[in-house]
Amino acid sequence: MQNQKSNQNQKFIYGFHSIISKLRIHPESIKEIYIENSRNDKRTQELTQLANFANVAVNNSVNADFFQKLFANKNHQSVAAKIDNRIKMLHLDDILDTFDFSKQKILLLVLDGITDPRNLGACLRTADAAGVDAVIVPKDKSAGLSEVVIKTACGAADSVPLIAVTNLARTLKQLQEKNIWVIGTSDAAKVSLYEERWENNNANGYAWVLGSEGSGLRQLTQKTCDELVFIPMLGSVESLNVAVATGICLYESVRRNQQNQQNSK
Amino acid sequence: MQNQKSNQNQKFIYGFHSIISKLRIHPESIKEIYIENSRNDKRTQELTQLANFANVAVNNSVNADFFQKLFANKNHQSVAAKIDNRIKMLHLDDILDTFDFSKQKILLLVLDGITDPRNLGACLRTADAAGVDAVIVPKDKSAGLSEVVIKTACGAADSVPLIAVTNLARTLKQLQEKNIWVIGTSDAAKVSLYEERWENNNANGYAWVLGSEGSGLRQLTQKTCDELVFIPMLGSVESLNVAVATGICLYESVRRNQQNQQNSK
Repeated sequence: MQNQKSNQNQKFIYGFHSIISKLRIHPESIKEIYIENSRNDKRTQELTQLANFANVAVNNSVNADFFQKLFANKNHQSVAAKIDNRIKMLHLDDILDTFDFSKQKILLLVLDGITDPRNLGACLRTADAAGVDAVIVPKDKSAGLSEVVIKTACGAADSVPLIAVTNLARTLKQLQEKNIWVIGTSDAAKVSLYEERWENNNANGYAWVLGSEGSGLRQLTQKTCDELVFIPMLGSVESLNVAVATGICLYESVRRNQQNQQNSK
Repeated sequence: MQNQKSNQNQKFIYGFHSIISKLRIHPESIKEIYIENSRNDKRTQELTQLANFANVAVNNSVNADFFQKLFANKNHQSVAAKIDNRIKMLHLDDILDTFDFSKQKILLLVLDGITDPRNLGACLRTADAAGVDAVIVPKDKSAGLSEVVIKTACGAADSVPLIAVTNLARTLKQLQEKNIWVIGTSDAAKVSLYEERWENNNANGYAWVLGSEGSGLRQLTQKTCDELVFIPMLGSVESLNVAVATGICLYESVRRNQQNQQNSK
């Protein structure tokens, strides 16, 4: 990745999800978008429209070699973007104000007190895979975006917006005001995530709240959630790794989403 | 670890979780439990009570040096146990011949080529939580039950039977002969684990087969599976951590099981 080395303020991201997310939240950070010249399908057309709307240049004359050189065998989907690498702190409003709730439900992950950087990285990776729109962490009770986090996240640290907030309970209330349903996980919950009928309500989306393996959610966080669910523990271990628990919760949202889409066809 | 070298039939395990799990399932294998002399808190008191109940000797006169020498910087929590290391090698037949298929469906996890001990440990922990009846690994393509595995597994290495087999494809066929449905995960699969109707068949249970993050399932393993499914990847990362993928697959079985039980009420 020579371009990255020659200019430390610039780097490349790839894949539709990362680029669209970046276009939505920080279009000004994108220098140029690259689409392979052989592609002209619905997804690339949509991407081009979004880019035009955001006044971002699109270069659709690059060939397969361009992607091969930059990303080798990564799953670049023949789209890339050169971006300004100077990270700007994201605010929750950046996400909530730009999200089109009329088109789809938002999916958020809130991590309360994950201080182990490997766990935070693994959660980011899982969140990206599940199509999460943003990950929210409390400023003072969380691992920072260290190199270990970035490495463990396998690229997700660039694609999933991470928002550090000062007061987590207040943030959850802000989500609730936007009609986002806030689901916490707790051993002490009375219903499992599979029994709960949360798919039936008319929320604008869901925020899953997970705590650290040792101590779980803080009291105030628990109290603020719209509901609490537990993950069935059928063996002798007392808890799951937090990234595994995150995967189980988020993919239950993915599953229900796909089922709803299937049913509405 | 001098003791380990001087007596190959003995080894030390450490941490509350591992020791309590061992006390529960194989108390007869514990020679002695060690608690650092400066500790006298609720957790050590509980451990002592459990040990007394199981008639296992507790030595609470050892000092910090004892742990430092044995475990260096590992998270031993100032508790350890000397155990008889002669693991009874489990055979697949031990599980299949003693399992009561008339009462419930069996749930198995097959890991093809997980060589990272942390990942193996995390998979064991997840398998235990999901109520898996046994984990099957190929002898020559897997991390052994090292201390790292045991610690990462949080006790599950002692509670979930781990079966090492010589020929994985042959083992899968053996499962199929017992009418166990073998589901492999693969990026190249045509249906997702949520679309597949695998709950409708009359199998005696399910075996989930997961491969390593890098290379996935081996060709022969893939071919032997009854079906292949993929986990939806909605973001830009290419794969999930194998323990997270394991959790998503196993808990889909847990969910369907609970749903079936609900429906049959």
